[in-house]
Amino acid sequence: MTVVGAGTLGTQVALQTAITGHDVTVLDVSEDSLQNCRKNHELILQSFLEREQDPSKVQARAWTNLKSSSSSSSNNSSKDAERVVQETLGRLMYTTDPAQAMDGCELVSENVPEVPEIKSSTYTTLTDHIISSNDNTQDIIFTTNSSTLLPSDFVDVLPEQYRSNFLALHFANGIWDANIGEIMPHPGTDPAITEQVVNFAKDIRMVPFHILKEQNGYIINSLLVPWLNAAQTLVTNGVVQTPSEVDKAWLISMGGYHHNDLSTIRAPFIVMDQIGVPLVANVLSYWGEVSNDAQMTANGNYLQTHYVDHGKHGITNGNPSMCDPTEGIYSYPHPEYMNSDFMH
Amino acid sequence: MTVVGAGTLGTQVALQTAITGHDVTVLDVSEDSLQNCRKNHELILQSFLEREQDPSKVQARAWTNLKSSSSSSSNNSSKDAERVVQETLGRLMYTTDPAQAMDGCELVSENVPEVPEIKSSTYTTLTDHIISSNDNTQDIIFTTNSSTLLPSDFVDVLPEQYRSNFLALHFANGIWDANIGEIMPHPGTDPAITEQVVNFAKDIRMVPFHILKEQNGYIINSLLVPWLNAAQTLVTNGVVQTPSEVDKAWLISMGGYHHNDLSTIRAPFIVMDQIGVPLVANVLSYWGEVSNDAQMTANGNYLQTHYVDHGKHGITNGNPSMCDPTEGIYSYPHPEYMNSDFMH
Repeated sequence: MTVVGAGTLGTQVALQTAITGHDVTVLDVSEDSLQNCRKNHELILQSFLEREQDPSKVQARAWTNLKSSSSSSSNNSSKDAERVVQETLGRLMYTTDPAQAMDGCELVSENVPEVPEIKSSTYTTLTDHIISSNDNTQDIIFTTNSSTLLPSDFVDVLPEQYRSNFLALHFANGIWDANIGEIMPHPGTDPAITEQVVNFAKDIRMVPFHILKEQNGYIINSLLVPWLNAAQTLVTNGVVQTPSEVDKAWLISMGGYHHNDLSTIRAPFIVMDQIGVPLVANVLSYWGEVSNDAQMTANGNYLQTHYVDHGKHGITNGNPSMCDPTEGIYSYPHPEYMNSDFMH
Repeated sequence: MTVVGAGTLGTQVALQTAITGHDVTVLDVSEDSLQNCRKNHELILQSFLEREQDPSKVQARAWTNLKSSSSSSSNNSSKDAERVVQETLGRLMYTTDPAQAMDGCELVSENVPEVPEIKSSTYTTLTDHIISSNDNTQDIIFTTNSSTLLPSDFVDVLPEQYRSNFLALHFANGIWDANIGEIMPHPGTDPAITEQVVNFAKDIRMVPFHILKEQNGYIINSLLVPWLNAAQTLVTNGVVQTPSEVDKAWLISMGGYHHNDLSTIRAPFIVMDQIGVPLVANVLSYWGEVSNDAQMTANGNYLQTHYVDHGKHGITNGNPSMCDPTEGIYSYPHPEYMNSDFMH
């Protein structure tokens, strides 16, 4: 499998695919990005070993699944875990050479920036290398991990013979915990190809969601955007005094207080910090403009001017206590929602 | 304190107020409703005693708070609990006579149906009885528990001298678990009155949320409506095959799988069943029409024609396993989200 683009999500997809026993080539135009990707692979695997040794930590779903399915009869699970780490690293290759990356490749996961020109030139480069190679009958599935574009938005950049082999396979940030694979074909995708991708998603320990019609935001972002927007509306319009009031009301109403592990609680502004405030600000501004929704646009602006412009970008690793003491909507590493009396 | 209207929410407000040591009069036009209310008070208190004896059950927040704040040094908590039950029932009075209900009353919680004419005639009846009584200087605070109307929508039905004493004090269904009190004044409410109501909410073990500007839906419904609407959009438009796929994706992404008690998990369609499908259908249809949102209207219609019209009304007590085997969006009493492999 070839992962194209060694950013945050590309890094995660590559690692999860390698963890589950597949050889993976990571392709990026930047040597620095690739080195950074390799470093992150080591750090993430190390963090699994640490979670493994600390029973108070919630274990990553996609990692735990893997370990429990291991056929090894050994009881020494920490040794098992270290073996998985070493084997995983051995299955990962990093290159800036498209020809090398495409050689023998059966499945591409494209994770390049959400800029139509970059998407377009990426697919042109990849397919040029197949077509010019000796093995031009090579059967390759192309999947995009795009969050904002629909497959039909850029299917035309692929040579015609690959269009029916093209669809979206979308992962959530924090792929090991939020192990969903959203599979979204365009109208011209071959159903047999879609089915192969559903099986691939299962194979790498994702729970597959087959999306029947193209939908901006797939399932999860389709729910998240209106929910986050509604929460921000209350703050933007001065209906509440603080974002934390909104979170507190949600958590009390929705039973969030039953969690024993406060690091796993989820409410709108906590989630904004986890996603990253700049991304949420951009999404609300973008969709506010596209759908001519003045309130949503105002919400995007509010997040930009009150947080992003002041360097308050949130956290992205999902665990505030392991975070740099940067600030988001909440202050870390000890946000008020981690206080045991937050919901009193 | 006088609770006007002995429906679902009035019943809950009256009981919680009595539990926390206040004398409560429940006023309703129907003798049957009052008898039903009394019966429900006994059943709910009984269910607290049962939860008390079963350590696997999540204890109701507003009840647990009360017990833990008890000054009793006795270790016999089950005896304590039975004493609280008996004392609570002793503080509750039920009447169809407005004069009796308003005699000496300092605070009204109005819980009558969301029909402007009923609201209007209720306030006229209540205030007529004060004005015609000997004690016409009686200082009474009027709070409405309306979910859909703003205080300023019907403040004018009150005699002028009571308008600054009028505001919303809104409770969630399942007041003991979702113990929030949303306090929303209209522009003419006396701030000192608002503060008194905030303190009253604390006094009856609610977490108070002071809403600074009138807002349809307060905090919680302002978040819930767009979130539920977005989920239903995916189903109405055939983007997903089943509602449970949407819930599953949400739960995996948002960490719902960390719950040990599956009866506490929350995702859009699970929550619709908990709220009651007819109510959600009505809310979406109503706001779809008011805001000229064709998708929201279609979503309301979908819920009506696919569930409500077939008697699938969901559950309302929050605990599917204690529920009658009626059907909602999920099938009870063993909905698929209670299966341990639901999120695999």
